[in-house]
Amino acid sequence: VSGTVVRNIHRADAAAIATLERLGVATVHEAQGRAGLMQPYLRPVWRGAQVAGSAVTALCHPGDNWMIHVACEVLTPGDVLVVACSSENTDGGFGELLATSVKARGARGVVLDIGCRDAAGITEMRFPVWSRAISAKGTVKSSLGSVNLPVVCAGVSVRPGDVVVADDDGVVVVPRLEAVRVAKAGEDREKKEAVNRARLQKGELGLDLYGMRKSLADKGIQYIDGPLD
Amino acid sequence: VSGTVVRNIHRADAAAIATLERLGVATVHEAQGRAGLMQPYLRPVWRGAQVAGSAVTALCHPGDNWMIHVACEVLTPGDVLVVACSSENTDGGFGELLATSVKARGARGVVLDIGCRDAAGITEMRFPVWSRAISAKGTVKSSLGSVNLPVVCAGVSVRPGDVVVADDDGVVVVPRLEAVRVAKAGEDREKKEAVNRARLQKGELGLDLYGMRKSLADKGIQYIDGPLD
Amino acid sequence: VSGTVVRNIHRADAAAIATLERLGVATVHEAQGRAGLMQPYLRPVWRGAQVAGSAVTALCHPGDNWMIHVACEVLTPGDVLVVACSSENTDGGFGELLATSVKARGARGVVLDIGCRDAAGITEMRFPVWSRAISAKGTVKSSLGSVNLPVVCAGVSVRPGDVVVADDDGVVVVPRLEAVRVAKAGEDREKKEAVNRARLQKGELGLDLYGMRKSLADKGIQYIDGPLD
Amino acid sequence: VSGTVVRNIHRADAAAIATLERLGVATVHEAQGRAGLMQPYLRPVWRGAQVAGSAVTALCHPGDNWMIHVACEVLTPGDVLVVACSSENTDGGFGELLATSVKARGARGVVLDIGCRDAAGITEMRFPVWSRAISAKGTVKSSLGSVNLPVVCAGVSVRPGDVVVADDDGVVVVPRLEAVRVAKAGEDREKKEAVNRARLQKGELGLDLYGMRKSLADKGIQYIDGPLD
Amino acid sequence: VSGTVVRNIHRADAAAIATLERLGVATVHEAQGRAGLMQPYLRPVWRGAQVAGSAVTALCHPGDNWMIHVACEVLTPGDVLVVACSSENTDGGFGELLATSVKARGARGVVLDIGCRDAAGITEMRFPVWSRAISAKGTVKSSLGSVNLPVVCAGVSVRPGDVVVADDDGVVVVPRLEAVRVAKAGEDREKKEAVNRARLQKGELGLDLYGMRKSLADKGIQYIDGPLD
Amino acid sequence: VSGTVVRNIHRADAAAIATLERLGVATVHEAQGRAGLMQPYLRPVWRGAQVAGSAVTALCHPGDNWMIHVACEVLTPGDVLVVACSSENTDGGFGELLATSVKARGARGVVLDIGCRDAAGITEMRFPVWSRAISAKGTVKSSLGSVNLPVVCAGVSVRPGDVVVADDDGVVVVPRLEAVRVAKAGEDREKKEAVNRARLQKGELGLDLYGMRKSLADKGIQYIDGPLD
Repeated sequence: VSGTVVRNIHRADAAAIATLERLGVATVHEAQGRAGLMQPYLRPVWRGAQVAGSAVTALCHPGDNWMIHVACEVLTPGDVLVVACSSENTDGGFGELLATSVKARGARGVVLDIGCRDAAGITEMRFPVWSRAISAKGTVKSSLGSVNLPVVCAGVSVRPGDVVVADDDGVVVVPRLEAVRVAKAGEDREKKEAVNRARLQKGELGLDLYGMRKSLADKGIQYIDGPLD
Repeated sequence: VSGTVVRNIHRADAAAIATLERLGVATVHEAQGRAGLMQPYLRPVWRGAQVAGSAVTALCHPGDNWMIHVACEVLTPGDVLVVACSSENTDGGFGELLATSVKARGARGVVLDIGCRDAAGITEMRFPVWSRAISAKGTVKSSLGSVNLPVVCAGVSVRPGDVVVADDDGVVVVPRLEAVRVAKAGEDREKKEAVNRARLQKGELGLDLYGMRKSLADKGIQYIDGPLD
Repeated sequence: VSGTVVRNIHRADAAAIATLERLGVATVHEAQGRAGLMQPYLRPVWRGAQVAGSAVTALCHPGDNWMIHVACEVLTPGDVLVVACSSENTDGGFGELLATSVKARGARGVVLDIGCRDAAGITEMRFPVWSRAISAKGTVKSSLGSVNLPVVCAGVSVRPGDVVVADDDGVVVVPRLEAVRVAKAGEDREKKEAVNRARLQKGELGLDLYGMRKSLADKGIQYIDGPLD
Repeated sequence: VSGTVVRNIHRADAAAIATLERLGVATVHEAQGRAGLMQPYLRPVWRGAQVAGSAVTALCHPGDNWMIHVACEVLTPGDVLVVACSSENTDGGFGELLATSVKARGARGVVLDIGCRDAAGITEMRFPVWSRAISAKGTVKSSLGSVNLPVVCAGVSVRPGDVVVADDDGVVVVPRLEAVRVAKAGEDREKKEAVNRARLQKGELGLDLYGMRKSLADKGIQYIDGPLD
Repeated sequence: VSGTVVRNIHRADAAAIATLERLGVATVHEAQGRAGLMQPYLRPVWRGAQVAGSAVTALCHPGDNWMIHVACEVLTPGDVLVVACSSENTDGGFGELLATSVKARGARGVVLDIGCRDAAGITEMRFPVWSRAISAKGTVKSSLGSVNLPVVCAGVSVRPGDVVVADDDGVVVVPRLEAVRVAKAGEDREKKEAVNRARLQKGELGLDLYGMRKSLADKGIQYIDGPLD
Repeated sequence: VSGTVVRNIHRADAAAIATLERLGVATVHEAQGRAGLMQPYLRPVWRGAQVAGSAVTALCHPGDNWMIHVACEVLTPGDVLVVACSSENTDGGFGELLATSVKARGARGVVLDIGCRDAAGITEMRFPVWSRAISAKGTVKSSLGSVNLPVVCAGVSVRPGDVVVADDDGVVVVPRLEAVRVAKAGEDREKKEAVNRARLQKGELGLDLYGMRKSLADKGIQYIDGPLD
């Protein structure tokens, strides 16, 4: 399968993607049962972006970004490019020129399980990128990987067309066929959280709001007046 | 002791806390003899905050934030909530809703030896949080830990009521009964540093300002004119 | 050689340094054949600085910053101070007072393979510093190291007078006698990249721009129309 | 899907499993095109074991080993238990008692993306275990995960019934339906390596054995007689 | 307190220490409520030792082992020397000569939150040492720390005279005044585990042995016959 | 310089190499003034080897071991092959076949700043290898590096012909022209240590043996009889 490029993929429901983008990573992650979160070493190159899109996947090898160039051709507007690597590597396989190209193809953002270079230029372009490192280390173009086959990126399995949601909290993946259901669950959660936020702001305790006192007592919690010393 | 919550604690001297907050982490750390600094993996969620307060401590278990909810009830205005964990964990056990609650209780800030979620929201609220990671990973509420017992957080022993000082440099802990003494020592140091800063700005060398030339010579330092190549 | 300080060093060509500074780390690294990049754990204390200068080197020991004070005396305007350490250490051996002193000596910036304290103050001063950590941990002045002997800093060999270029992407080192050649090669690369950027912006693919289709085919790349599922 | 347990799975071809076990990790990894290798932080609790078997998968949460107990019931002789975790964790969720139980069920070995306790006892039992850490840290039994659903373990996607091969080099996963093909390719590779080993032992160079001189020359390699200094 | 050496300490009950040593780390850790375990990066220099003793504590600074020499004088037969460091450091502050000295004083073993050198010699001596690294890096003798004051070692607070238990699983600390109680609880646990081991060996499931089926059902576990694919 | 191979190098004095090998890493490191020690993440594939030899250096790129094959041709009996990598990488670029070849060329051992595969086979061969990881991850042969140019390996600058000493404590590098001097200094140190060992074995304290009491007092050490609690 190394050397395989799949040109066309099924993409997720556009309305669901828009909702997931608005909800953001933390809410989406909870809404799908605390699954699909990439490891927290992935960080935004600049803070403040919040995007979602259908995943176009690329598998590269350490120190080699050839497949990113190949992936560009199959990107369509609204996609998020997801770059996995066959072993741990922080080389800067993605920089300002590739960002220019990927942006010209209409991509919403890029998630890199490798390094990103040209951090200042990419910040100035306001093109959203998440990476495991910032590094100017150059890469070669000599080993075939794959485009649009399933990959594991930062600890999460990603299939082409899955929805990738990314913001300052990190990156979460929603399976394509679950996007509509998770978007709905996320909106429900959002409403509930708005109510809870208002009550917490008034000083109500989570212990009461979430009804935790009984289960704490059942587990045997012991309150002591103190002070102890 | 797991399952124990101490409601009331002795808190540190208010004037000393105010002084320690103004002095900041680096000065306080030096003033108490280079002790009490938490490990540098603790980073502020947003840069620019500088706070101090009496520690309310919570001990959680990996992937479980139940005790944070329990701790909220015993927070009083001016406290800093310190969350330790029984093993290394980066899950996002603290987010915008808890920040809202903790802020409503009057806390000055939160120090987490776990992860923080809702980084964008917490930044917007300007609520000061230090954590070992940013992660949207959700947590459960099922294991009892403790509140207001001594804990080890990021490598430092913290007793309830100790003063926690945090800024862009990290987090330092001052034992409650030493707060007044350390605050005084910090002010002395601050004055001395102001004088030294002015002299260094004029180009005077630290070698002369701190009188290092003799001890360097005693150790056998050798000056060569050079260049060597 | 421990305890040796070399007062005078050969410095690199001033025009080349100015060019290398303008080009930035990623371009310079490529222009010298993808060599000389320090490890990506080195990060700027604040984002946005871009500097280059002749290296003045100091070798310290863990938890000891004495040699930084010694190095100050041999700094000349335009230099970049490079601090190596004999074993891994993140203690805050450099802070606002040393930054004041180093700036007063005319240095362009500082690269630390140890920690930096007073992050807020240094940010406010807008003095450029790269470090492996931010830490308020204080240091002693008791062990001799060296000044202006060759060191290894963040994985790269640095000789006094080599050109150090640093920006948001990290830090790269250009051997002194290669500075002019690399600056020229960097300018050539810069021109070529400007042309490529314009073509990529219009949507042209890297596959075509860089003529990759033949080598991909030679390696046996296989295109499948898809979708696969 | 959290809380789902699948009792029965398709298992891989027994003869292929036996061959893959004999070939070992390095040969199998090469034979399937350098894919499927788990991250190298997975290490054997004791050196010298070499096993292969069909994967029974369990997904646990940090600090919680409940699903390992659930998985025991669906293990059949010859299986390898693969334990993934929803976030990074080193707690000792598997020890001598579980090893006793899993061995009694006929399992060939266990792969843990968490910690292992009772290292001495497990070594004495000669039961093969690979883990990311050795840690006595106890775990709770309170959160549902899954058994025999696809998981990501140490960076590799594992489906129930895939073949897991483990030895002193680490752990590699072969998709169930590829086991026969990969076993055959591995045997071919093994024969070729035996021939090469004999020639290398006699002092023949890899440059000649693998015919590398031409491609090195094509890339522009330059030989200098030296010595340079 | 830097520069303070306490000559005499209360030590723990000798019979309790002997029991805790025999029980080992995993059982003791469970018996005291899953508390007191040092971080799993501490590893034995050689496998197979199992010791317990009263802690004599030393606090060193990075790259400086002076306080270990000072601590030797206050060691008594049966003690375990616990070395903490004021910041993360792997330098080899303990080697064969110190092992010879510490052994001559009758110590049972050494726990180092720094590095250990002379690994081969210490292995040959069969002197038990746990450390965070093996490193030949030499250390200086120039900064005062403390001996027999409370320290934090590998994430755990240790007071002089606390019982330190160490084996292949790592290191656990039992507060001095709890040693008798924890030793008793450990023996009870040991008996229960012997019974459970026998039942598990016969193939009985943990699900039945520990009565987990009801709580799994209460949480909503779902069994599917499968296979799914 | 990428693509350059230097066939012949100056090698170090044979008698000095033999002495350095016998002395081992810790003694040699001290004897040359605590310099030249590679980072402690380098570990032997099997414990018990102790070797020294003249360095033949290779610079590879991540995931690419081509230059190791090229280096084999210039190895002579007694050499130690030192493999550096242009960025952090743990791929298994060296295994049993290369070990067979390198051994056939007469090399004493191999130091890898990358991963090693075939750990079991290499252990059985008793061929000495130090590496930063054990990993079966395969590598390609497509990018030119260099052979017998200076490299940085595991944090230390190595020039071809320098003496590399390796044992269970790690790896240290002695500059070629200093080998005789360091070997002599090491022998002196060895004799002194033998005397000290005998005195320490009899229970004499390092405090007295090394005459530390006065400098401790000068620094202000305070002895308290205790116990404190």
